[in-house]
Amino acid sequence: MIIYGDSKSGNCYKLQLVCANLGLKYTWVELNILNKETQNADFLAKNPNGKIPIIELESGEVITESNAILNYLADNTELLPAEPLKRARVLQWQFFEQYSHEPYIAVARFIEKYLNLPTERLAEYKQKQEGGYKALDIMESHLADNLFLVANKYSIADISLYAYTHVAHEGGFDLTSYPHIQLWLNRIEQHPGYCAMQ
Amino acid sequence: MIIYGDSKSGNCYKLQLVCANLGLKYTWVELNILNKETQNADFLAKNPNGKIPIIELESGEVITESNAILNYLADNTELLPAEPLKRARVLQWQFFEQYSHEPYIAVARFIEKYLNLPTERLAEYKQKQEGGYKALDIMESHLADNLFLVANKYSIADISLYAYTHVAHEGGFDLTSYPHIQLWLNRIEQHPGYCAMQ
Repeated sequence: MIIYGDSKSGNCYKLQLVCANLGLKYTWVELNILNKETQNADFLAKNPNGKIPIIELESGEVITESNAILNYLADNTELLPAEPLKRARVLQWQFFEQYSHEPYIAVARFIEKYLNLPTERLAEYKQKQEGGYKALDIMESHLADNLFLVANKYSIADISLYAYTHVAHEGGFDLTSYPHIQLWLNRIEQHPGYCAMQ
Repeated sequence: MIIYGDSKSGNCYKLQLVCANLGLKYTWVELNILNKETQNADFLAKNPNGKIPIIELESGEVITESNAILNYLADNTELLPAEPLKRARVLQWQFFEQYSHEPYIAVARFIEKYLNLPTERLAEYKQKQEGGYKALDIMESHLADNLFLVANKYSIADISLYAYTHVAHEGGFDLTSYPHIQLWLNRIEQHPGYCAMQ
């Protein structure tokens, strides 16, 4: 399997973490999004949406969208429950991540970490804070009563939300008043096979 | 099963369509988002994110996020393939929908249909057009070679993308130059059990 990704991207790091947890081997191809390496003809032939991460299987088949890839790689493993309601809850948190968390926290981090807070995107950066804190509030409340996001057991739902939450400070978010999120981050970091973001 | 939704919302209509296709019975509770009926304490106890649709099972369990609900309801039916790679492709299109399609096409439609194009959101409305057309281009290209989004067979991936694509004109999008999307919309409308958006 080949993973095409950017080491600084949380969406790409999700795949590194699930592979480390599951002991899956892969070849990593580093792409620089600022240099538009996901917008050339070769890459667009693999993913017409021009986004990373993607994986390319031995068969040549390509799968796009980080959370779809996580479900594919973790199927039939301890990181993805088989029971239908629990599986629905995993997806519930992953769709929450892509719609209500990533567009605020990851985009604020992108503006700060990748672009170095340019003046013309400062208003957008500030607007992202409210939505990001709302997502963190929802997680904090849930984690006050739960060890992990689904069924009190570490799963790919945790990986999906961990990716950008643990670097939320790089987008201006202060986790000091989120003690249950902090404990949950620690719990994930203690899980066998954990690998840090590079 | 109870579905809490808004009849004008594409995300909620997805559930009406999958239930019609599968012959599932439900009680519909209509909520008005402009009147903030998803922001009161009763609703937030069911979904802290304050978004519809949600479903409430006989057991009292609540599932949120339209695409997570579709996967739950269609599991073990002809609308969700069992084969892992095909399942990954269904999710791939659903995550594409929530990240690269809905935030443009559905939000533009919301500004036009729900809010009647207020002056203060006109710039945002216009900005949404580029991203929306990019999503439509990707669909058009795929549908030029495929009858349906995954494995040439009608699935919940088609339901997820049909929901806002078939009313994209209500957000200012012109589908005239998207002949394969138009044929695909017709194909879905011919599928047994189809129900129109109300």
